[in-house]
Amino acid sequence: MSVARAFALGVDIGGTKVAAGLADAEGTILFQTRVAMLAHGSAAEGLGAVQSAIEGVFAARPEARASLKGIGICAPGPLDPVTGMILNPPNVPCWRNFPLAAEVQRVFGISARVDNDGNAAALAEAIWGAGVGYRNVFYATLGTGIGAGIVFDRRIYHGRTGSAAEGGHVTIDYHGPQCGCGKRGCIEALCSGPAIARRARERLVETPEADSKMLALAGGKVDGVNAEIVAEAFRQGDPLACEVLRETADFLAVWAGNIIDLLEPDVFIFGGGLAQLMSGFFGRMREQLANWCVNKRFAGMPIVLGKYGPDAGIAGAAALCRI
Amino acid sequence: MSVARAFALGVDIGGTKVAAGLADAEGTILFQTRVAMLAHGSAAEGLGAVQSAIEGVFAARPEARASLKGIGICAPGPLDPVTGMILNPPNVPCWRNFPLAAEVQRVFGISARVDNDGNAAALAEAIWGAGVGYRNVFYATLGTGIGAGIVFDRRIYHGRTGSAAEGGHVTIDYHGPQCGCGKRGCIEALCSGPAIARRARERLVETPEADSKMLALAGGKVDGVNAEIVAEAFRQGDPLACEVLRETADFLAVWAGNIIDLLEPDVFIFGGGLAQLMSGFFGRMREQLANWCVNKRFAGMPIVLGKYGPDAGIAGAAALCRI
Repeated sequence: MSVARAFALGVDIGGTKVAAGLADAEGTILFQTRVAMLAHGSAAEGLGAVQSAIEGVFAARPEARASLKGIGICAPGPLDPVTGMILNPPNVPCWRNFPLAAEVQRVFGISARVDNDGNAAALAEAIWGAGVGYRNVFYATLGTGIGAGIVFDRRIYHGRTGSAAEGGHVTIDYHGPQCGCGKRGCIEALCSGPAIARRARERLVETPEADSKMLALAGGKVDGVNAEIVAEAFRQGDPLACEVLRETADFLAVWAGNIIDLLEPDVFIFGGGLAQLMSGFFGRMREQLANWCVNKRFAGMPIVLGKYGPDAGIAGAAALCRI
Repeated sequence: MSVARAFALGVDIGGTKVAAGLADAEGTILFQTRVAMLAHGSAAEGLGAVQSAIEGVFAARPEARASLKGIGICAPGPLDPVTGMILNPPNVPCWRNFPLAAEVQRVFGISARVDNDGNAAALAEAIWGAGVGYRNVFYATLGTGIGAGIVFDRRIYHGRTGSAAEGGHVTIDYHGPQCGCGKRGCIEALCSGPAIARRARERLVETPEADSKMLALAGGKVDGVNAEIVAEAFRQGDPLACEVLRETADFLAVWAGNIIDLLEPDVFIFGGGLAQLMSGFFGRMREQLANWCVNKRFAGMPIVLGKYGPDAGIAGAAALCRI
């Protein structure tokens, strides 16, 4: 019957939590739950956290178990999406060469797939979200880090060993600030949440006369300014915060121009914690792209906000078992 | 019979010449000829030059005509590879929205396909050359300009409107030198032949005490130093020319690191007039990639010289009608 296998279970694993949720065939998230991730214990303890998150879904939605298409898992990289192995993620040291997909499959008797969060979220947007109807989907996630995913014809593009698409580490300024990855001037080192906050703090120090709301929101302490404070000050109309975000949009335009010239996607989707904020600058980005795209047909390519917002991880994970 | 349709005819159109050649089913170029391109006359005159180059092939190899799979054409962009229309190429002003594939097909009664040179050369390398056996092929052409082509599973990746893959205009330094395309710090503005020559001339002016062979080769005139002179001085062991080329390799490593992080191709192939010269620096590029690739598995990816050298245009054009 057609109801069978109507559901997909998505698990989103981070360094501190495991979120699990249930999506229907149209990608609507029907339920979600989360537990603490035990990232620093044994491999079995880490697996136990994943198991208990999944059991939390089955407990709340027992009807899902019999009609589940599979379990999809977003996990921290590096990982191998083909074998479902977690290799050696810095944030989840409990797993070293750990066959996560096979283990989950063994525990629940349900087929499981593993991929990284950028790829998975890109897939969810491509098949259920802002990328529906487009063949070549480029997805970028703006948050504590900057990630990316490429979906061609409803398939994740993985590259040679599954490491594509590390879009956050595309350098636009080889003289630029050092990124955590070791490269200089990666877009992550310029436009991630911490990078935005760093640039805001630099501006505050350079222009003490600006009397920015950011400083007040941080209790008068420059060091206390983070990306949330920049965002809040911007919402309150603070000119310096606005300038910092406009500069963020300008950097993103250089970066997006590189990607558009190289790949000319059909659609460019932004997700992640800072995407909503930056969507107010999509117009600015388009203006700047005129200077940073040799391909003038970029104007016909939509730049849009992803559909899933904070649910991108669960939706992405669930999408992994729909294809 | 199996001999039928064994040949592919490739036409490579530049601003000043049209080269045409005949390739067999294994991509061996059996014959080639060239005529002057009439780029600044009427559309019909431009087509006439193409026609006479093709007729030159048929005159020399009359047996090919009956067993031809098709005519492939590398033409200056922008163009539409789907419709075979040449849009508005700056170097070939005779054609504006000119249906080149349809016109060639009409004249000869043989199916014709059009694509840009980077894409076509990438395809030839993927199906016949250095990319055989790899699924995800990235090809870069180093010469007067820097171009690129991406081939996935023996198909050219075209992007939304056929403008991919403008790899030469990926910016690695948004403060950098202005490129002819309008962007700053594109790899073309740093590592094309004219850019290498410009950097060499700058070095000569900065370090007159270097007593570089480049200056002697240019008849004592700094302004006379071009990429050929840099290459010749390097071959003669000139330290300053070597330094300029080593810097070129370092820039190319930043750029290739971006592409590898984003796309993780299975193989990275260099073609074009300067590729042979730069192949002496592939080791240097690999060393530098350690600093410019977040994906440490780049070490398993071959960086190689293309097979076709100066025949890349004809081979690429011929490859267009093999798939």
